[in-house]
Amino acid sequence: MSAVRVHNFSISIDGFATGEGQAADAPFGHAGERLHEWMFATRSWQGEGGSIGADNAFAERHGPGIGAEIMGAGKFGPPNWQDDPDYRGAWGPNPPFHAPVFVLTHRPRPSIEMEGGTTFHFLDASPAEALDRAREAAAGQDVRLGGGPTVVRDFVNADLVDHLHVVQVPLLLGRGVRLWDGLEALEEKYDIEAVSTPSRVTHLTFTRRR
Amino acid sequence: MSAVRVHNFSISIDGFATGEGQAADAPFGHAGERLHEWMFATRSWQGEGGSIGADNAFAERHGPGIGAEIMGAGKFGPPNWQDDPDYRGAWGPNPPFHAPVFVLTHRPRPSIEMEGGTTFHFLDASPAEALDRAREAAAGQDVRLGGGPTVVRDFVNADLVDHLHVVQVPLLLGRGVRLWDGLEALEEKYDIEAVSTPSRVTHLTFTRRR
Repeated sequence: MSAVRVHNFSISIDGFATGEGQAADAPFGHAGERLHEWMFATRSWQGEGGSIGADNAFAERHGPGIGAEIMGAGKFGPPNWQDDPDYRGAWGPNPPFHAPVFVLTHRPRPSIEMEGGTTFHFLDASPAEALDRAREAAAGQDVRLGGGPTVVRDFVNADLVDHLHVVQVPLLLGRGVRLWDGLEALEEKYDIEAVSTPSRVTHLTFTRRR
Repeated sequence: MSAVRVHNFSISIDGFATGEGQAADAPFGHAGERLHEWMFATRSWQGEGGSIGADNAFAERHGPGIGAEIMGAGKFGPPNWQDDPDYRGAWGPNPPFHAPVFVLTHRPRPSIEMEGGTTFHFLDASPAEALDRAREAAAGQDVRLGGGPTVVRDFVNADLVDHLHVVQVPLLLGRGVRLWDGLEALEEKYDIEAVSTPSRVTHLTFTRRR
């Protein structure tokens, strides 16, 4: 069975995956890009000249073996993007997914085919239903769960996530959307590893027990 | 000036320093002793036979150079210990502090001299006032802030903590008292380091910038 994977999901020390005040020019609200600087520094992100240490090794796992992505409405665009019938996502004409992407929204619209192999599909569906659709599209490859925090939490609660990679960044956001709410005793379902790297982030990996 | 230090302050991945349901036989509520197992395994705690790695190196910093401790009422005893005029703390006749201990409570009582050099003093005071008293008693040595989470937060918010050592344990408590609430942008005041150890905990150290 193809696995469901979350990669490079970055949070503050106090557990926020996004700040307050999300908008078109601030997709992570008052967090800005600070949760993802560790990733921008890697070769995986910037190519030659980027770091090739542990941060990069984790970051590179994002792509290989993935046949489809599922994301929440809050990742696809700023609040109320559904009001704009021509909105085509936050990534320009050639989005970095190069695969079918299933966007969870209570206001679905027709699919949009973009350049580079990305097609956006819009679903008003439960996590299990969305996963069925994504798995079918992934044709035997894994499904990446792209976030945001509410979607990750919903899928973990529905017991659908096999591999969860969280990156804890040394800052305190104080407000926004938390990843960890309501996930008591997750350690009973997952083997948890932690490794801190010289960039001062800590990679937490949750591997579901078989 | 003597420093204010917090040591071995253990939290879950979701940031809880104590669970729900604190009682005389469950000082950390439903967390039980799980937040502190990393410490029990060290030589610092169990003597010969205990581990002497990084966990122990951190754990050993708890004692040296400390002249007094400040703690919250919730650490001194179970809820409503104030109703028992004979209550003498959760540690038996010879508590492990061996120094003056200042207990913050809205219902103070006369000081209690215990065996082994520990004297409990009871203060209804602000963090700054309590620290003045503790510093005087510490006679030039450092003051340890013993917790719980509310007290640590209050002192950090009052800008009184110089060194904060937090140990993140790989479990999710889901409920209880969080350490991190309302501490946005702490990284602007502190240098933060993280190091994960083979016991799977991550030590976070916050060193106040001068």
